[in-house]
Amino acid sequence: MRRLKLGVAYDGTDFCGWQRQDNGPSVQAHIEDIIEQMTGVKTFVRGAGRTDAGVHALGQVAHFDTEAHIPLHGFLKGINSSLPRAIAITSVEEAPPGFDARFSARGKLYRYSIWNAAVRAPLLDRYAWHAYRPLDVAPMREAAEAIVGKHDFSAFRAADCERKTTTRTVTRLDVQRQGDTVTIEIEADAFLKNMVRIVAGTLAYVGWGKLTPADVGEILAAGDRTRAGQTAPALGLVLVRVDY
Amino acid sequence: MRRLKLGVAYDGTDFCGWQRQDNGPSVQAHIEDIIEQMTGVKTFVRGAGRTDAGVHALGQVAHFDTEAHIPLHGFLKGINSSLPRAIAITSVEEAPPGFDARFSARGKLYRYSIWNAAVRAPLLDRYAWHAYRPLDVAPMREAAEAIVGKHDFSAFRAADCERKTTTRTVTRLDVQRQGDTVTIEIEADAFLKNMVRIVAGTLAYVGWGKLTPADVGEILAAGDRTRAGQTAPALGLVLVRVDY
Repeated sequence: MRRLKLGVAYDGTDFCGWQRQDNGPSVQAHIEDIIEQMTGVKTFVRGAGRTDAGVHALGQVAHFDTEAHIPLHGFLKGINSSLPRAIAITSVEEAPPGFDARFSARGKLYRYSIWNAAVRAPLLDRYAWHAYRPLDVAPMREAAEAIVGKHDFSAFRAADCERKTTTRTVTRLDVQRQGDTVTIEIEADAFLKNMVRIVAGTLAYVGWGKLTPADVGEILAAGDRTRAGQTAPALGLVLVRVDY
Repeated sequence: MRRLKLGVAYDGTDFCGWQRQDNGPSVQAHIEDIIEQMTGVKTFVRGAGRTDAGVHALGQVAHFDTEAHIPLHGFLKGINSSLPRAIAITSVEEAPPGFDARFSARGKLYRYSIWNAAVRAPLLDRYAWHAYRPLDVAPMREAAEAIVGKHDFSAFRAADCERKTTTRTVTRLDVQRQGDTVTIEIEADAFLKNMVRIVAGTLAYVGWGKLTPADVGEILAAGDRTRAGQTAPALGLVLVRVDY
Protein backbone atom coordinates (compact mmCIF):
# COMPACT_ATOMS: atom_id res chain seq x y z
CA MET A 1 0.00 0.00 0.00
CA ARG A 2 1.32 3.42 -0.88
CA ARG A 3 -0.04 6.87 -0.20
CA LEU A 4 -0.05 9.47 -2.97
CA LYS A 5 -0.23 13.22 -2.54
CA LEU A 6 -2.17 15.24 -5.13
CA GLY A 7 -2.13 18.91 -6.04
CA VAL A 8 -5.59 19.95 -7.22
CA ALA A 9 -6.87 23.10 -8.95
CA TYR A 10 -10.49 23.84 -9.80
CA ASP A 11 -12.97 26.42 -10.92
CA GLY A 12 -15.61 25.85 -8.25
CA THR A 13 -18.45 27.61 -10.09
CA ASP A 14 -20.33 24.46 -11.03
CA PHE A 15 -19.53 22.26 -8.00
CA CYS A 16 -21.24 21.82 -4.66
CA GLY A 17 -17.76 22.15 -3.13
CA TRP A 18 -14.83 19.83 -2.49
CA GLN A 19 -16.74 17.27 -0.48
CA ARG A 20 -18.89 14.48 -1.94
CA GLN A 21 -22.55 15.31 -1.36
CA ASP A 22 -25.95 14.17 -2.50
CA ASN A 23 -27.05 17.55 -3.83
CA GLY A 24 -24.64 18.04 -6.70
CA PRO A 25 -21.32 17.27 -8.37
CA SER A 26 -18.29 17.62 -6.10
CA VAL A 27 -14.59 17.78 -6.85
CA GLN A 28 -13.88 14.87 -4.48
CA ALA A 29 -16.45 12.58 -6.11
CA HIS A 30 -15.08 13.29 -9.61
CA ILE A 31 -11.54 12.37 -8.55
CA GLU A 32 -12.58 9.34 -6.46
CA ASP A 33 -14.72 7.92 -9.25
CA ILE A 34 -11.89 8.20 -11.79
CA ILE A 35 -9.37 6.55 -9.46
CA GLU A 36 -11.85 3.74 -8.91
CA GLN A 37 -12.18 3.31 -12.68
CA MET A 38 -8.39 3.26 -13.05
CA THR A 39 -7.60 0.90 -10.16
CA GLY A 40 -10.76 -1.15 -9.86
CA VAL A 41 -10.90 -0.31 -6.14
CA LYS A 42 -13.29 2.08 -4.41
CA THR A 43 -10.98 4.80 -3.09
CA PHE A 44 -11.32 7.59 -0.55
CA VAL A 45 -9.57 10.85 -1.40
CA ARG A 46 -9.05 13.18 1.54
CA GLY A 47 -8.65 16.90 0.87
CA ALA A 48 -6.77 19.37 3.04
CA GLY A 49 -9.84 21.57 3.29
CA ARG A 50 -13.51 21.28 2.42
CA THR A 51 -14.03 24.30 0.21
CA ASP A 52 -17.64 25.52 0.01
CA ALA A 53 -19.85 25.38 -3.06
CA GLY A 54 -18.55 27.88 -5.62
CA VAL A 55 -15.13 28.36 -4.00
CA HIS A 56 -12.10 27.88 -6.27
CA ALA A 57 -8.68 26.33 -5.69
CA LEU A 58 -5.24 26.84 -7.16
CA GLY A 59 -3.44 24.73 -4.57
CA GLN A 60 -5.80 22.26 -2.89
CA VAL A 61 -3.93 19.19 -1.61
CA ALA A 62 -5.36 15.69 -1.21
CA HIS A 63 -4.15 12.15 -0.61
CA PHE A 64 -5.30 8.60 -1.28
CA ASP A 65 -4.02 5.10 -0.67
CA THR A 66 -3.65 2.54 -3.43
CA GLU A 67 -2.04 -0.81 -4.20
CA ALA A 68 -2.26 -0.23 -7.95
CA HIS A 69 1.05 -0.46 -9.82
CA ILE A 70 0.42 2.69 -11.81
CA PRO A 71 3.33 5.13 -12.10
CA LEU A 72 2.89 8.68 -10.77
CA HIS A 73 2.80 10.09 -14.27
CA GLY A 74 0.15 7.54 -15.22
CA PHE A 75 -2.10 8.77 -12.44
CA LEU A 76 -1.51 12.40 -13.43
CA LYS A 77 -2.34 11.81 -17.10
CA GLY A 78 -5.08 9.28 -16.44
CA ILE A 79 -7.03 11.31 -13.90
CA ASN A 80 -6.70 14.56 -15.87
CA SER A 81 -7.87 13.01 -19.10
CA SER A 82 -11.15 11.92 -17.46
CA LEU A 83 -11.82 14.98 -15.32
CA PRO A 84 -14.00 17.86 -16.55
CA ARG A 85 -11.86 20.80 -17.67
CA ALA A 86 -12.89 22.74 -14.56
CA ILE A 87 -10.75 20.41 -12.42
CA ALA A 88 -7.07 19.56 -12.86
CA ILE A 89 -4.60 17.41 -10.96
CA THR A 90 -1.49 19.62 -10.93
CA SER A 91 0.89 17.11 -9.33
CA VAL A 92 1.08 13.51 -8.09
CA GLU A 93 3.86 12.41 -5.73
CA GLU A 94 4.59 9.73 -3.16
CA ALA A 95 3.44 11.11 0.19
CA PRO A 96 6.11 11.44 2.89
CA PRO A 97 5.80 8.90 5.78
CA GLY A 98 2.87 9.68 8.06
CA PHE A 99 1.46 12.27 5.68
CA ASP A 100 -2.26 13.14 5.84
CA ALA A 101 -3.53 15.90 3.56
CA ARG A 102 -5.89 17.19 6.23
CA PHE A 103 -4.21 16.45 9.53
CA SER A 104 -0.62 17.22 8.50
CA ALA A 105 -1.53 20.70 7.23
CA ARG A 106 0.21 23.41 9.24
CA GLY A 107 -1.52 26.28 7.49
CA LYS A 108 -3.38 27.55 4.46
CA LEU A 109 -3.42 30.66 2.31
CA TYR A 110 -6.71 31.95 0.91
CA ARG A 111 -7.24 34.91 -1.41
CA TYR A 112 -10.48 36.86 -1.64
CA SER A 113 -11.01 39.20 -4.62
CA ILE A 114 -13.44 42.13 -4.81
CA TRP A 115 -14.24 44.07 -7.99
CA ASN A 116 -14.89 47.52 -6.56
CA ALA A 117 -16.29 49.67 -9.38
CA ALA A 118 -19.73 50.94 -10.30
CA VAL A 119 -20.01 48.72 -13.39
CA ARG A 120 -19.46 44.95 -13.33
CA ALA A 121 -16.35 43.45 -14.96
CA PRO A 122 -17.39 40.59 -17.27
CA LEU A 123 -13.89 39.05 -17.37
CA LEU A 124 -13.72 38.89 -13.55
CA ASP A 125 -17.33 37.97 -13.00
CA ARG A 126 -16.67 34.34 -12.06
CA TYR A 127 -13.77 35.11 -9.74
CA ALA A 128 -14.45 38.36 -7.90
CA TRP A 129 -17.30 39.71 -5.77
CA HIS A 130 -18.76 42.80 -7.44
CA ALA A 131 -19.09 45.16 -4.47
CA TYR A 132 -19.80 48.44 -6.23
CA ARG A 133 -19.68 50.97 -3.38
CA PRO A 134 -16.14 52.44 -2.99
CA LEU A 135 -14.04 50.69 -0.35
CA ASP A 136 -11.48 52.65 1.69
CA VAL A 137 -8.65 50.18 2.25
CA ALA A 138 -6.86 52.18 4.99
CA PRO A 139 -9.41 51.31 7.75
CA MET A 140 -9.70 47.78 6.32
CA ARG A 141 -5.97 47.34 6.97
CA GLU A 142 -6.34 48.71 10.48
CA ALA A 143 -9.16 46.24 11.16
CA ALA A 144 -7.02 43.45 9.70
CA GLU A 145 -4.42 44.12 12.40
CA ALA A 146 -7.06 43.36 15.05
CA ILE A 147 -7.78 40.00 13.40
CA VAL A 148 -4.16 38.86 13.07
CA GLY A 149 -3.03 36.69 15.98
CA LYS A 150 -4.43 33.86 18.10
CA HIS A 151 -8.11 34.43 18.84
CA ASP A 152 -11.40 32.72 19.44
CA PHE A 153 -13.04 33.16 16.03
CA SER A 154 -16.60 32.31 17.12
CA ALA A 155 -17.80 35.61 15.62
CA PHE A 156 -16.40 34.59 12.25
CA ARG A 157 -17.92 31.20 11.59
CA ALA A 158 -21.10 29.83 10.03
CA ALA A 159 -23.99 29.04 12.34
CA ASP A 160 -23.75 25.35 11.42
CA CYS A 161 -19.97 25.09 11.90
CA GLU A 162 -19.40 21.91 13.90
CA ARG A 163 -15.85 22.44 15.14
CA LYS A 164 -15.52 22.18 18.91
CA THR A 165 -12.45 24.37 19.22
CA THR A 166 -12.83 27.83 17.77
CA THR A 167 -9.36 29.23 18.48
CA ARG A 168 -7.30 29.82 15.35
CA THR A 169 -4.08 31.72 14.66
CA VAL A 170 -4.13 34.14 11.75
CA THR A 171 -0.50 34.76 10.79
CA ARG A 172 -1.11 37.23 7.97
CA LEU A 173 -4.03 39.31 6.70
CA ASP A 174 -3.21 41.71 3.87
CA VAL A 175 -5.55 44.09 2.07
CA GLN A 176 -4.33 45.46 -1.27
CA ARG A 177 -5.92 47.68 -3.88
CA GLN A 178 -4.77 47.53 -7.49
CA GLY A 179 -6.93 49.76 -9.65
CA ASP A 180 -10.53 48.69 -9.06
CA THR A 181 -9.60 45.32 -7.56
CA VAL A 182 -9.29 44.87 -3.79
CA THR A 183 -7.56 41.67 -2.74
CA ILE A 184 -7.57 40.16 0.72
CA GLU A 185 -4.99 37.46 1.53
CA ILE A 186 -5.25 35.52 4.76
CA GLU A 187 -2.99 32.84 6.21
CA ALA A 188 -3.87 30.86 9.31
CA ASP A 189 -3.09 27.52 10.91
CA ALA A 190 -6.67 26.43 10.16
CA PHE A 191 -10.04 27.99 9.37
CA LEU A 192 -13.59 27.63 10.66
CA LYS A 193 -16.52 27.19 8.29
CA ASN A 194 -17.06 30.37 6.19
CA MET A 195 -14.35 32.14 8.24
CA VAL A 196 -12.58 33.75 5.27
CA ARG A 197 -15.84 34.86 3.69
CA ILE A 198 -17.05 36.43 6.96
CA VAL A 199 -13.67 38.13 7.43
CA ALA A 200 -13.95 39.48 3.86
CA GLY A 201 -17.54 40.63 4.41
CA THR A 202 -16.61 42.29 7.71
CA LEU A 203 -13.61 44.06 6.20
CA ALA A 204 -15.91 45.30 3.41
CA TYR A 205 -18.24 46.77 6.07
CA VAL A 206 -15.20 48.57 7.50
CA GLY A 207 -14.22 49.79 4.04
CA TRP A 208 -17.72 51.24 3.65
CA GLY A 209 -17.70 52.85 7.09
CA LYS A 210 -20.49 50.61 8.44
CA LEU A 211 -18.07 49.30 11.07
CA THR A 212 -14.92 50.85 12.54
CA PRO A 213 -11.63 48.99 13.01
CA ALA A 214 -12.27 49.19 16.77
CA ASP A 215 -15.67 47.53 16.29
CA VAL A 216 -13.96 44.55 14.67
CA GLY A 217 -11.73 44.01 17.71
CA GLU A 218 -14.80 44.17 19.96
CA ILE A 219 -16.84 41.78 17.80
CA LEU A 220 -13.95 39.31 17.86
CA ALA A 221 -13.60 39.63 21.66
CA ALA A 222 -17.36 39.28 22.20
CA GLY A 223 -17.64 36.32 19.79
CA ASP A 224 -20.78 37.92 18.38
CA ARG A 225 -21.50 36.64 14.85
CA THR A 226 -24.55 38.90 14.52
CA ARG A 227 -22.39 42.05 14.66
CA ALA A 228 -19.81 40.87 12.12
CA GLY A 229 -20.30 41.57 8.42
CA GLN A 230 -22.07 39.53 5.80
CA THR A 231 -20.68 36.26 4.48
CA ALA A 232 -19.06 37.44 1.25
CA PRO A 233 -20.07 35.43 -1.85
CA ALA A 234 -18.18 32.18 -2.50
CA LEU A 235 -17.11 33.10 -6.04
CA GLY A 236 -14.47 35.59 -4.82
CA LEU A 237 -12.58 32.98 -2.80
CA VAL A 238 -9.58 30.87 -3.85
CA LEU A 239 -7.62 28.32 -1.79
CA VAL A 240 -4.15 29.32 -2.96
CA ARG A 241 -1.83 27.05 -0.98
CA VAL A 242 -1.65 24.47 1.80
CA ASP A 243 1.52 24.35 3.92
CA TYR A 244 2.91 21.22 5.58
CA MET B 1 -29.56 64.19 -32.91
CA ARG B 2 -26.62 63.43 -30.69
CA ARG B 3 -23.92 60.79 -30.99
CA LEU B 4 -22.93 58.82 -27.89
CA LYS B 5 -19.65 56.97 -27.34
CA LEU B 6 -19.75 53.70 -25.39
CA GLY B 7 -17.03 51.75 -23.61
CA VAL B 8 -17.89 48.04 -23.77
CA ALA B 9 -16.40 45.00 -21.99
CA TYR B 10 -17.41 41.40 -22.57
CA ASP B 11 -16.60 37.79 -21.97
CA GLY B 12 -16.86 36.55 -25.55
CA THR B 13 -17.18 32.85 -24.68
CA ASP B 14 -20.87 32.56 -25.47
CA PHE B 15 -21.15 35.06 -28.35
CA CYS B 16 -20.69 34.70 -32.10
CA GLY B 17 -18.55 37.87 -31.86
CA TRP B 18 -19.21 41.59 -31.81
CA GLN B 19 -21.18 41.73 -35.03
CA ARG B 20 -24.88 40.90 -35.39
CA GLN B 21 -25.22 37.58 -37.21
CA ASP B 22 -27.85 35.01 -37.93
CA ASN B 23 -25.96 32.11 -36.38
CA GLY B 24 -25.91 33.14 -32.74
CA PRO B 25 -26.12 35.86 -30.10
CA SER B 26 -23.78 38.81 -30.71
CA VAL B 27 -22.68 41.65 -28.47
CA GLN B 28 -23.86 44.25 -30.98
CA ALA B 29 -27.37 42.77 -31.24
CA HIS B 30 -27.76 42.67 -27.45
CA ILE B 31 -26.86 46.35 -27.13
CA GLU B 32 -28.88 47.47 -30.16
CA ASP B 33 -31.99 45.64 -29.00
CA ILE B 34 -31.83 47.21 -25.54
CA ILE B 35 -31.34 50.73 -26.93
CA GLU B 36 -34.34 50.15 -29.20
CA GLN B 37 -36.39 49.10 -26.17
CA MET B 38 -35.26 52.20 -24.26
CA THR B 39 -35.76 54.75 -27.04
CA GLY B 40 -38.45 53.15 -29.17
CA VAL B 41 -36.23 53.59 -32.25
CA LYS B 42 -34.34 50.91 -34.13
CA THR B 43 -30.69 51.87 -33.59
CA PHE B 44 -27.41 50.90 -35.22
CA VAL B 45 -24.43 50.59 -32.89
CA ARG B 46 -21.06 50.67 -34.63
CA GLY B 47 -18.10 49.04 -32.88
CA ALA B 48 -14.45 50.00 -33.34
CA GLY B 49 -13.57 46.43 -34.26
CA ARG B 50 -15.46 43.27 -35.13
CA THR B 51 -14.05 40.82 -32.63
CA ASP B 52 -14.39 37.16 -33.67
CA ALA B 53 -16.56 34.56 -31.95
CA GLY B 54 -15.09 33.80 -28.54
CA VAL B 55 -12.82 36.86 -28.39
CA HIS B 56 -13.12 39.03 -25.27
CA ALA B 57 -12.98 42.78 -24.74
CA LEU B 58 -11.96 45.04 -21.91
CA GLY B 59 -12.02 48.23 -23.93
CA GLN B 60 -14.19 47.88 -27.04
CA VAL B 61 -15.58 51.26 -28.15
CA ALA B 62 -18.83 51.84 -30.00
CA HIS B 63 -21.12 54.72 -30.95
CA PHE B 64 -24.76 55.27 -31.79
CA ASP B 65 -27.00 58.21 -32.70
CA THR B 66 -30.16 59.02 -30.81
CA GLU B 67 -32.73 61.76 -30.35
CA ALA B 68 -33.88 60.33 -27.04
CA HIS B 69 -33.72 62.72 -24.06
CA ILE B 70 -32.15 60.17 -21.77
CA PRO B 71 -29.20 61.36 -19.67
CA LEU B 72 -25.83 59.63 -20.08
CA HIS B 73 -26.15 57.96 -16.71
CA GLY B 74 -29.62 56.73 -17.67
CA PHE B 75 -28.21 54.97 -20.71
CA LEU B 76 -25.37 53.46 -18.63
CA LYS B 77 -27.70 52.10 -15.96
CA GLY B 78 -30.49 51.19 -18.34
CA ILE B 79 -28.42 49.24 -20.84
CA ASN B 80 -26.40 47.46 -18.16
CA SER B 81 -29.48 46.38 -16.24
CA SER B 82 -30.84 44.59 -19.32
CA LEU B 83 -27.62 43.10 -20.66
CA PRO B 84 -26.49 39.58 -19.77
CA ARG B 85 -23.74 39.67 -17.11
CA ALA B 86 -21.18 38.68 -19.74
CA ILE B 87 -21.47 42.16 -21.31
CA ALA B 88 -21.08 45.53 -19.59
CA ILE B 89 -21.22 49.12 -20.79
CA THR B 90 -18.28 50.67 -18.91
CA SER B 91 -18.87 54.29 -19.97
CA VAL B 92 -21.30 56.49 -21.91
CA GLU B 93 -20.26 59.95 -23.06
CA GLU B 94 -21.15 62.54 -25.69
CA ALA B 95 -18.98 61.78 -28.73
CA PRO B 96 -16.64 64.56 -29.87
CA PRO B 97 -17.64 66.27 -33.15
CA GLY B 98 -17.08 64.03 -36.17
CA PHE B 99 -16.40 60.97 -34.02
CA ASP B 100 -16.92 57.51 -35.51
CA ALA B 101 -16.01 54.51 -33.33
CA ARG B 102 -14.62 52.61 -36.31
CA PHE B 103 -13.25 55.23 -38.68
CA SER B 104 -11.79 57.60 -36.07
CA ALA B 105 -9.75 54.83 -34.41
CA ARG B 106 -6.02 55.52 -34.75
CA GLY B 107 -4.95 52.24 -33.21
CA LYS B 108 -5.82 49.28 -31.01
CA LEU B 109 -4.14 47.20 -28.35
CA TYR B 110 -4.81 43.46 -28.18
CA ARG B 111 -3.48 40.99 -25.61
CA TYR B 112 -3.10 37.27 -26.26
CA SER B 113 -2.58 34.93 -23.28
CA ILE B 114 -1.05 31.45 -23.36
CA TRP B 115 -1.05 29.02 -20.43
CA ASN B 116 2.22 27.18 -21.04
CA ALA B 117 2.35 24.26 -18.63
CA ALA B 118 1.83 20.53 -18.94
CA VAL B 119 -1.42 20.55 -16.96
CA ARG B 120 -4.36 22.84 -17.78
CA ALA B 121 -5.22 25.73 -15.43
CA PRO B 122 -8.94 25.64 -14.61
CA LEU B 123 -9.04 29.27 -13.45
CA LEU B 124 -7.52 30.51 -16.74
CA ASP B 125 -9.32 28.05 -18.98
CA ARG B 126 -11.74 30.60 -20.45
CA TYR B 127 -9.11 33.27 -21.05
CA ALA B 128 -5.85 31.60 -22.10
CA TRP B 129 -4.82 29.13 -24.78
CA HIS B 130 -3.46 25.98 -23.14
CA ALA B 131 -0.33 25.35 -25.23
CA TYR B 132 1.41 22.71 -23.16
CA ARG B 133 4.78 22.35 -24.92
CA PRO B 134 7.40 24.69 -23.38
CA LEU B 135 7.79 27.99 -25.24
CA ASP B 136 11.18 29.72 -25.42
CA VAL B 137 10.34 33.42 -25.35
CA ALA B 138 13.79 34.65 -26.48
CA PRO B 139 13.34 33.67 -30.16
CA MET B 140 9.68 34.75 -29.97
CA ARG B 141 10.90 38.25 -29.08
CA GLU B 142 13.38 38.18 -31.93
CA ALA B 143 10.62 37.19 -34.36
CA ALA B 144 8.43 39.96 -32.93
CA GLU B 145 11.03 42.51 -34.01
CA ALA B 146 10.58 41.36 -37.60
CA ILE B 147 6.83 41.93 -37.36
CA VAL B 148 7.00 45.44 -35.85
CA GLY B 149 6.81 48.17 -38.48
CA LYS B 150 4.85 48.92 -41.64
CA HIS B 151 4.35 45.76 -43.68
CA ASP B 152 2.00 43.99 -46.03
CA PHE B 153 0.37 41.50 -43.64
CA SER B 154 -1.13 39.22 -46.31
CA ALA B 155 0.58 36.23 -44.65
CA PHE B 156 -1.22 37.03 -41.38
CA ARG B 157 -4.86 37.20 -42.34
CA ALA B 158 -7.77 34.82 -42.68
CA ALA B 159 -8.48 33.35 -46.11
CA ASP B 160 -11.88 35.09 -46.13
CA CYS B 161 -10.56 38.51 -45.07
CA GLU B 162 -12.18 41.05 -47.39
CA ARG B 163 -9.96 44.07 -46.85
CA LYS B 164 -8.46 45.45 -50.05
CA THR B 165 -5.44 47.06 -48.46
CA THR B 166 -3.29 44.69 -46.46
CA THR B 167 -0.60 47.10 -45.27
CA ARG B 168 -0.69 47.75 -41.54
CA THR B 169 1.72 49.35 -39.09
CA VAL B 170 2.50 47.38 -35.93
CA THR B 171 3.89 49.88 -33.42
CA ARG B 172 4.55 47.45 -30.56
CA LEU B 173 4.74 43.67 -30.15
CA ASP B 174 5.83 42.47 -26.70
CA VAL B 175 6.25 38.89 -25.51
CA GLN B 176 6.40 38.39 -21.74
CA ARG B 177 6.61 35.31 -19.56
CA GLN B 178 5.37 35.40 -15.97
CA GLY B 179 5.58 31.95 -14.43
CA ASP B 180 3.67 29.62 -16.74
CA THR B 181 1.79 32.41 -18.52
CA VAL B 182 3.13 33.87 -21.77
CA THR B 183 1.49 37.14 -22.79
CA ILE B 184 1.69 38.75 -26.21
CA GLU B 185 0.68 42.40 -26.53
CA ILE B 186 0.31 43.96 -29.95
CA GLU B 187 -0.52 47.52 -30.97
CA ALA B 188 -1.17 48.55 -34.56
CA ASP B 189 -3.03 51.22 -36.50
CA ALA B 190 -5.50 48.56 -37.64
CA PHE B 191 -5.73 44.78 -37.96
CA LEU B 192 -6.72 42.31 -40.65
CA LYS B 193 -9.12 39.45 -39.94
CA ASN B 194 -7.51 36.93 -37.52
CA MET B 195 -4.23 38.87 -37.70
CA VAL B 196 -3.51 38.82 -33.96
CA ARG B 197 -4.39 35.14 -33.67
CA ILE B 198 -2.11 34.23 -36.61
CA VAL B 199 0.69 36.35 -35.14
CA ALA B 200 0.22 34.54 -31.80
CA GLY B 201 0.16 31.12 -33.48
CA THR B 202 3.25 31.97 -35.52
CA LEU B 203 5.15 33.23 -32.48
CA ALA B 204 4.21 29.98 -30.71
CA TYR B 205 5.74 28.02 -33.60
CA VAL B 206 8.91 30.07 -33.11
CA GLY B 207 8.82 29.41 -29.35
CA TRP B 208 8.63 25.68 -30.10
CA GLY B 209 11.45 25.80 -32.67
CA LYS B 210 9.18 24.89 -35.60
CA LEU B 211 10.03 28.24 -37.22
CA THR B 212 13.04 30.51 -36.75
CA PRO B 213 12.84 34.28 -36.27
CA ALA B 214 14.35 34.63 -39.76
CA ASP B 215 11.56 32.45 -41.20
CA VAL B 216 9.01 34.91 -39.87
CA GLY B 217 10.60 37.80 -41.70
CA GLU B 218 10.60 35.73 -44.89
CA ILE B 219 6.98 34.63 -44.50
CA LEU B 220 5.96 38.26 -44.00
CA ALA B 221 7.93 39.38 -47.05
CA ALA B 222 6.56 36.54 -49.20
CA GLY B 223 2.99 37.11 -48.02
CA ASP B 224 2.61 33.34 -47.67
CA ARG B 225 -0.18 32.44 -45.24
CA THR B 226 0.49 28.71 -45.64
CA ARG B 227 3.94 29.02 -44.04
CA ALA B 228 2.81 31.11 -41.05
CA GLY B 229 1.67 29.39 -37.86
CA GLN B 230 -1.78 28.22 -36.87
CA THR B 231 -4.58 30.62 -36.01
CA ALA B 232 -4.38 30.57 -32.20
CA PRO B 233 -7.74 29.89 -30.47
CA ALA B 234 -10.06 32.85 -29.97
CA LEU B 235 -10.42 32.39 -26.21
CA GLY B 236 -6.89 33.73 -25.50
CA LEU B 237 -7.56 37.09 -27.14
CA VAL B 238 -8.72 40.33 -25.51
CA LEU B 239 -9.29 43.72 -27.16
CA VAL B 240 -7.74 45.87 -24.43
CA ARG B 241 -7.99 49.41 -25.76
CA VAL B 242 -8.91 51.52 -28.78
CA ASP B 243 -7.02 54.77 -29.30
CA TYR B 244 -8.47 57.87 -30.98
